[in-house]
Amino acid sequence: MMSDRVRIQRCHDALQKAGLDALVCRLPENIVMLTGYWPMNGFAFLIFPSENDPVLIAPVPEEELANDSWVKDVRLFKWGLVDSGDPYESIGKLLQGAAADLGLQGKRVGYEGSFEFVAAPYVGAEPSVFSQVTLNLYQQAFGDNLVDATSLIHKQRLYKTEAEIERLRIVNDVARMGLKAFAEQVVPGKSEIEIVAAVESAIMQGGTGYKGVKVARAWASVMSGPRAAAAYKPHLLSTQRRLEPGDMALLELATVADGWWSDLTRTRVAGNPSVADLEKWRTVVEAQRAALDAIKPGVMACAVDKAARDLIEARGLGQYFIHHTGHGLGLRYHEAEPFLHPAVETCLEPGMVSSVEPGIYIEGWGGMRCEDNIVVTETGVEILSEFSRSLAG
Amino acid sequence: MMSDRVRIQRCHDALQKAGLDALVCRLPENIVMLTGYWPMNGFAFLIFPSENDPVLIAPVPEEELANDSWVKDVRLFKWGLVDSGDPYESIGKLLQGAAADLGLQGKRVGYEGSFEFVAAPYVGAEPSVFSQVTLNLYQQAFGDNLVDATSLIHKQRLYKTEAEIERLRIVNDVARMGLKAFAEQVVPGKSEIEIVAAVESAIMQGGTGYKGVKVARAWASVMSGPRAAAAYKPHLLSTQRRLEPGDMALLELATVADGWWSDLTRTRVAGNPSVADLEKWRTVVEAQRAALDAIKPGVMACAVDKAARDLIEARGLGQYFIHHTGHGLGLRYHEAEPFLHPAVETCLEPGMVSSVEPGIYIEGWGGMRCEDNIVVTETGVEILSEFSRSLAG
Repeated sequence: MMSDRVRIQRCHDALQKAGLDALVCRLPENIVMLTGYWPMNGFAFLIFPSENDPVLIAPVPEEELANDSWVKDVRLFKWGLVDSGDPYESIGKLLQGAAADLGLQGKRVGYEGSFEFVAAPYVGAEPSVFSQVTLNLYQQAFGDNLVDATSLIHKQRLYKTEAEIERLRIVNDVARMGLKAFAEQVVPGKSEIEIVAAVESAIMQGGTGYKGVKVARAWASVMSGPRAAAAYKPHLLSTQRRLEPGDMALLELATVADGWWSDLTRTRVAGNPSVADLEKWRTVVEAQRAALDAIKPGVMACAVDKAARDLIEARGLGQYFIHHTGHGLGLRYHEAEPFLHPAVETCLEPGMVSSVEPGIYIEGWGGMRCEDNIVVTETGVEILSEFSRSLAG
Repeated sequence: MMSDRVRIQRCHDALQKAGLDALVCRLPENIVMLTGYWPMNGFAFLIFPSENDPVLIAPVPEEELANDSWVKDVRLFKWGLVDSGDPYESIGKLLQGAAADLGLQGKRVGYEGSFEFVAAPYVGAEPSVFSQVTLNLYQQAFGDNLVDATSLIHKQRLYKTEAEIERLRIVNDVARMGLKAFAEQVVPGKSEIEIVAAVESAIMQGGTGYKGVKVARAWASVMSGPRAAAAYKPHLLSTQRRLEPGDMALLELATVADGWWSDLTRTRVAGNPSVADLEKWRTVVEAQRAALDAIKPGVMACAVDKAARDLIEARGLGQYFIHHTGHGLGLRYHEAEPFLHPAVETCLEPGMVSSVEPGIYIEGWGGMRCEDNIVVTETGVEILSEFSRSLAG
């Protein structure tokens, strides 16, 4: 696989500037960024020195995937078979060997100490994460000069390279297959959970193998009718509730394709929407448009939020737009920055990737949100997820 | 919701025996065990003293779910809205307040320091986990007498209570809906990924609302034909490969219902199986039967493994059964114990829950596995996942 030289150079520069001799990673979201390999079980380790070539430590069952990465020096540990032994014993030895080979014993090595939210691996039922067990292995390999490099890593992730933006175009292509299924499914008589299943199914079936994607998967939620008033919440239970004619349905959709993430929302009405619903929807879509039009390098995050918020307030619905206008994403469903929020004065820069997602939620009525993913370009904005914003029809 | 008094009593006893004044948890898999509440985002905290009533700290969007738990003292933090502020600041204050109210400042408090694999929360795209950030908050609240209680928690989880076994019966009922869909879908012309989507869809649609289940979700993998030879691996990519007449298809299936997990496997043949395939399958099913027959209190884990392995070896296929016979599960897709492996001499006891999953994998031919979930009873074994083991028809 062809490496992303820009990413690697940037990360070398950042480590040198921070006075770090290496980075050691075990979260799939960081390993995929630095190697092109998305650890399917989330159980792999990367030692990425500030100058030399990296060493990748992967489980034997993922040998083929690891060998398809940008890393030449792949070292394998046995895992999961009757004669595999304790994988941590093998990993410990491999880490110590790599630390010795790369001259990193006692050096300043950065690690992922403060990732409280992590991206699901492909084996999403059981993510593997960083704990004291891994920290002990790092200490044995590198000594006591370990540095929590979480901020440095997030800063790296804030600026996507052209190759990374191309991955995000692809995952949004895949996510659109789900939006299409959603548009087809929102008809009277369908249940929320039926629509969820159809959307996820469309993404798996259409996304697997699309433009070389090995695995595509989605997590959809649908809330309908008055239930959609709670669709600003982050857990979004979908139920057996069936759509009545005129009911709205709000889809929240996380999609992953080989480690790259999309976060989209659409709202549709089953059958014919009322005039009042059409008007509210127009407000949401125009607010999103206003935010999109405001995005360009040098503009403050809060100014983009204000563009959407002002429009919704001008229509008398300001009190119902209760969340931020957007958040970073790409290597995860949500990333901390950029954060399009009234209080954030950070300026947007080219390569930043964000959601843009105004919404209104009214108890007793329901909720509507329109969410796309964008990248800030040199001159303005590229919408990665362009797709119909019709409420019906 | 009615509390599981047996579980709470056992945990009180264990803490007192270990000289711990409390346990503090933030992993959904441990919170659901001690409160009945499954944190949908995985972003909640439980302070469970060795004697007094516990305090549950949950996000406002999950207020209703938290209030439906066994815990009377629920304290909420804002999260995710435009005026929510920093949730960690709120959580820090709530932890400190609870520590003061419960007299736990400076006391010996156990925490989840070494969970390297965790169960996905409902918002499975982005699990929330324990990191240095949470550890800092714990230190501010409880002081420096924190103790890594991972082993104590695993020991608790090793013995399921009757109420917990009932939850596992329910999730296996739900998982069976997926096995039924699998049996219907394995026909010539279907693709692996189509079958995956149909199985997951059946579980979501049938499981949501079943016997009061709020949310049901599955992660399925299907490998077919010669690809099934790699089905012992833990990542199991499913592809667009379509079944030819006579092809085998192996389903690996993780199912969760409100925080309780099942792990099942079935193998089917599209159309008519060959005599040779039927014979190999009979070996696998009889090996599973032999293991099931061997299970009762007092029997060593390795003896159960041996029962399955001896049968497969007697049929001349021993070299192809390359993994253990079973592993613990219940609060996660996999738990460390019991471990039905040739080298493990630990004795089985009532309340232990395990998979029983012999399989054979032959390069160039394919792979077959039959996996069920069981609980050790006072007199033998209860199969939680009884379902047809036919290869075809």
